[in-house]
Amino acid sequence: MPLPQPIAPALPGGLDTPALVIDIDIVERNAQRLANQIAACGVALRPHVKTHKSIALARIQIESGASGITVGTIGEAEVMADAGISDIFVAYPVWASAAKAPRIRALAERPGLRFAVGLDSVDAAAQLARAMAGSSARLRVVLEVDSNYGRTGTNAAMAGDLARAAQQAGLEVAGAFTHGGHGYADPAARDAAAADEIEALTVAAASLRTAGIEPQVLSAGSSPTATFSARPPVTEVRAGTYLIGDRQQVALGASPPDGVAIAIAATVVSEAVEHQFVIDAGAKSLTKDAPTYIAGFGSIPEFPGAVIERVSDYHGQVRYDPATVPPKLGQVVAVAPNHACPVIDLYDSFVATRSGTVLGRWQVDARGRSG
Amino acid sequence: MPLPQPIAPALPGGLDTPALVIDIDIVERNAQRLANQIAACGVALRPHVKTHKSIALARIQIESGASGITVGTIGEAEVMADAGISDIFVAYPVWASAAKAPRIRALAERPGLRFAVGLDSVDAAAQLARAMAGSSARLRVVLEVDSNYGRTGTNAAMAGDLARAAQQAGLEVAGAFTHGGHGYADPAARDAAAADEIEALTVAAASLRTAGIEPQVLSAGSSPTATFSARPPVTEVRAGTYLIGDRQQVALGASPPDGVAIAIAATVVSEAVEHQFVIDAGAKSLTKDAPTYIAGFGSIPEFPGAVIERVSDYHGQVRYDPATVPPKLGQVVAVAPNHACPVIDLYDSFVATRSGTVLGRWQVDARGRSG
Repeated sequence: MPLPQPIAPALPGGLDTPALVIDIDIVERNAQRLANQIAACGVALRPHVKTHKSIALARIQIESGASGITVGTIGEAEVMADAGISDIFVAYPVWASAAKAPRIRALAERPGLRFAVGLDSVDAAAQLARAMAGSSARLRVVLEVDSNYGRTGTNAAMAGDLARAAQQAGLEVAGAFTHGGHGYADPAARDAAAADEIEALTVAAASLRTAGIEPQVLSAGSSPTATFSARPPVTEVRAGTYLIGDRQQVALGASPPDGVAIAIAATVVSEAVEHQFVIDAGAKSLTKDAPTYIAGFGSIPEFPGAVIERVSDYHGQVRYDPATVPPKLGQVVAVAPNHACPVIDLYDSFVATRSGTVLGRWQVDARGRSG
Repeated sequence: MPLPQPIAPALPGGLDTPALVIDIDIVERNAQRLANQIAACGVALRPHVKTHKSIALARIQIESGASGITVGTIGEAEVMADAGISDIFVAYPVWASAAKAPRIRALAERPGLRFAVGLDSVDAAAQLARAMAGSSARLRVVLEVDSNYGRTGTNAAMAGDLARAAQQAGLEVAGAFTHGGHGYADPAARDAAAADEIEALTVAAASLRTAGIEPQVLSAGSSPTATFSARPPVTEVRAGTYLIGDRQQVALGASPPDGVAIAIAATVVSEAVEHQFVIDAGAKSLTKDAPTYIAGFGSIPEFPGAVIERVSDYHGQVRYDPATVPPKLGQVVAVAPNHACPVIDLYDSFVATRSGTVLGRWQVDARGRSG
């Protein structure tokens, strides 16, 4: 059975391409849908804003009921804190280097901000504690535990030991978090990944209690697993891409086909080679992110047989079925990107629309803030 | 036989990671080496600045003897023209949309700028001519011909017909250009791609002469093919990545191992999973550009057995040989990226160094100017 394919949002006319377009109607619908689903489970939603890096879109999430936000870097935290967002968790094993330490400390000491960072080692805890030495603020940390993804995170059964070391170093341990990233492996992987998240956090909670620490936070997170891991003992989920949607989320069943708010508007610039047309969106506009279960580097929903087979920096080479009519030279097409997060990070701003009507140019405020 | 591997430039201490570092000593050496080689062939070097997007680095190329520069987008042309660079060729089949037309016209009319754009269709020529309607300036165009890469470019034997149409539309036809991008296919592909470039430009020149047009420019171009296609009738070559070097160029034999001027400085943030460490450079710092003939998403020359097996937005997962000693938590390592061009485009600025000594923060002036 072929995987579901995205529908592209309507493009406004007259765009200078390549251009990033985000439909705010679809964003608001996505924000509300997941917020309602997660609220119905009695769990908090702390969306990951690394997907869009936009203050305006983060505010839409908070207005829809998010309990706070998740970020991946100290730079993202700074941008969002400067915008007045008051509850920020850096879901990353932060290392308080000499360069990062004063930045972390400034966030921990910022009035009105509830701030926490992740860690997965005793050394990282000691380093964070050094960053806070002499401060009247106490840094909140959430321990990362692995849930069979094998990226970062300590063994969940050892969470109590790590928590005790962190407490002894002077940090406040709020609980544990995990990321079942293997839910992205293929469209069948989601349920097992969600079960792994729940299992890891259950084990971590028991280990923390054995160490005498009652976890306030047990945080699971990814868009594919969000609605499946939103059950006790999990207290919050950290979905991100759900807000924007992309080809990958649709293929995984984590976004409806009409839940894709993003398009890259591109112009057909060449048709010199047979059975192919070339658009002005290449690797610097679409990235080379290409999950194994979807073909090419993005799709063009209006031309369903067309595959973006190869990208160079500024060229997208699209092979099409010769039995179909391709777009004309100069025509602007809407590309559904494979993976919204790294794509949005290529653009300083996007064209915000509602059903093809332009609202304005909105900033990707934390673009490039990867550290 | 294993492919050659890059040596990383020395990193300065105290960097806030991830950070883009470019060693200017190595840049200058690379600039001079290729300039000398190409000059010895009696051919002009018109480097492609899409690799670095930096005014300062473009000036190093011009001071080393480049005849002008190549860009891939109108946006790059604007940035470089604003900086006073006086000879710019947009090696791309430019489509003069309503949004682009005034930008193209302004460049064509700019005093003191020798400006040309590529085209590969009669329709694009007509569209460019419309953009210039009523102008006293005449737009120079260079016809793109295909050299068996199959991306863009008309059949070389038809160049004369296209040239006549462009002339009749009021454009000034300067010659033809091609890009043997299949020289990147694998380390053995270079010689055939260079031969294809020479052949296509020879055929295009004959076709142009039959149409009564004497080509001033026959332009070939890529870093792997540059020194091989720099011979008559080719008049100029458009290498780009040679200036910076990367893992791909070294694997292809197009850069010496010590010709890699670029490193992404990254910190080891986790070692929680066995036989693996994680660095804070992921897909938003390294891209997912991964040629088939090199393993992983970048190498860490100081740890030769280590492979960056998987990247997520902010994580690089590095598998290492358990018989070797991995870096410590908190240690900063230098990553050699697979492909410099899309990587540099992720950063607003870079740390310019000479042998590990910091010169300053230099801007990636045309970052994100992909259209």
